[in-house]
Amino acid sequence: MTDFAPTDAHKARAADWFQNLRDQICAAFEAIEQDYDGPDCDKADPGQFDYTKWERPGGGGGTIGKMKGRVFEKVGVNFSAVEGEFSEQFAKEIPGAIENPHFWASGISLVAHMRNPFVPPVHMNTRHLITAQHWFGGGADLNGIYPFDDDVALFHDCLKRACDANDPAYYDKFKAWADEYFFIPHRDEPRGQGGIFYDRLTSGPTEENWEQDFKFTQDVGLAFLEAFPAIVRKRMNTPYELEHRDFQAYKRGRYVEFNLLHDRGTRFGIMTNGNPDAILMSLPPMASWD
Amino acid sequence: MTDFAPTDAHKARAADWFQNLRDQICAAFEAIEQDYDGPDCDKADPGQFDYTKWERPGGGGGTIGKMKGRVFEKVGVNFSAVEGEFSEQFAKEIPGAIENPHFWASGISLVAHMRNPFVPPVHMNTRHLITAQHWFGGGADLNGIYPFDDDVALFHDCLKRACDANDPAYYDKFKAWADEYFFIPHRDEPRGQGGIFYDRLTSGPTEENWEQDFKFTQDVGLAFLEAFPAIVRKRMNTPYELEHRDFQAYKRGRYVEFNLLHDRGTRFGIMTNGNPDAILMSLPPMASWD
Repeated sequence: MTDFAPTDAHKARAADWFQNLRDQICAAFEAIEQDYDGPDCDKADPGQFDYTKWERPGGGGGTIGKMKGRVFEKVGVNFSAVEGEFSEQFAKEIPGAIENPHFWASGISLVAHMRNPFVPPVHMNTRHLITAQHWFGGGADLNGIYPFDDDVALFHDCLKRACDANDPAYYDKFKAWADEYFFIPHRDEPRGQGGIFYDRLTSGPTEENWEQDFKFTQDVGLAFLEAFPAIVRKRMNTPYELEHRDFQAYKRGRYVEFNLLHDRGTRFGIMTNGNPDAILMSLPPMASWD
Repeated sequence: MTDFAPTDAHKARAADWFQNLRDQICAAFEAIEQDYDGPDCDKADPGQFDYTKWERPGGGGGTIGKMKGRVFEKVGVNFSAVEGEFSEQFAKEIPGAIENPHFWASGISLVAHMRNPFVPPVHMNTRHLITAQHWFGGGADLNGIYPFDDDVALFHDCLKRACDANDPAYYDKFKAWADEYFFIPHRDEPRGQGGIFYDRLTSGPTEENWEQDFKFTQDVGLAFLEAFPAIVRKRMNTPYELEHRDFQAYKRGRYVEFNLLHDRGTRFGIMTNGNPDAILMSLPPMASWD
């Protein structure tokens, strides 16, 4: 049996999925903005996404989706599908890139910073990479400032169901990976309440394996779509005071520290001259430091 | 002639100077807080420095000086004198550390974030490092949000006089180095209006050379002390509006990006498990991103 390699049709299916998921998520978030009738709801109109397309010198590009709304103080949902050649420097760090530096990559990445300090910020990202090898990766983690146990449980339950439907070993493995990855070493504290993280997932050499891994990646996106809007709707009317906003700003500072000092995707993007507006979309609308 | 190596007496003189300079600077800044009678001067008492001592596992320690005042929204002035062994990983990057990983280091570092958007933020740092080799380093740069030509000229003039008094080649060389170093590559924009930057300065093998380099480093500190308080006093009563504070917050975001993504001292400190409160003292009281 010859090892399977994804064709243009497979790439198109993956990229179409990431765009389709982006559309579903943005629609769900805009519906929340419309339905919101909590604190200060009369101070601004419901938010809507603005989309900015960009092209990558070398091939492909993406779309930055950004909304600054009443519930979502700042949310970025980015889609991209790019191809090119890894630099010699980076090829060493990427499986399959020494043999052939050409790569194709597509994915969705999302960071939501919420206005109400009792609604948890969240991050989600899934992607498909093709070099001489091919794999899927992704993750989602909740970053509650005042975390509610049942929000954390709902988030993890949805992700666990997505994992269990694909492989009974996935949840424990990918939850542990998230706990390790979403940790701020210089502060010796976790970034939030975790979730799942997986990378370089290739469950086997066949096209059937590719289909399995693609299905799992789709299930992760759908689990996020089930969990997060439900949590937002549950918490968005919670009354809050200035002191809660102050602590939210402080925790956002920690988020900035993690992303700029430690997050591999952010540093990879910046150091390979990626689009800074797309990469740094994850930064909060404001942050404070003591 | 045998190469000179700094003795404990030389170390003590350097460390005493950095502490003495810290005292002079903090006194000058507190005097500004006392004298201030501009916008909102009645809303808060004059700021005073709080000092927090810390010890380094392995040897030495430092003092964090922090003031949150009426003119200085947040200013950190840190002194440290530490010694220890470089890790094998870092020894490769440090002159003289392969032969002998023991190091001694002392210095002062200062970052001031100002309340009034028309008063420029500033950074200053000078240090003495001793491995199997020894050198001085430092720099100062102005980061005006709405830079005034005559403030920039005054700042550069003072530094130029300090340079010229020591070596006629210094100013051009160290100004160019600052322009190169204090640049945000991923935004393709300078961090501010520059100043000077120098590192690994050892003008020769003798004790006389050490005295020359130490004197230059003292002169840089005194030039800063002459220039910056004068600029603050000149601009601190300028009226400003919310729009100016908003742009200040945006520029502070750029400052955060530079420090966490690119600044060598910050990354070095974080990656070698330095004291995060001292290292990240440079971060602004608040920052915003679009």
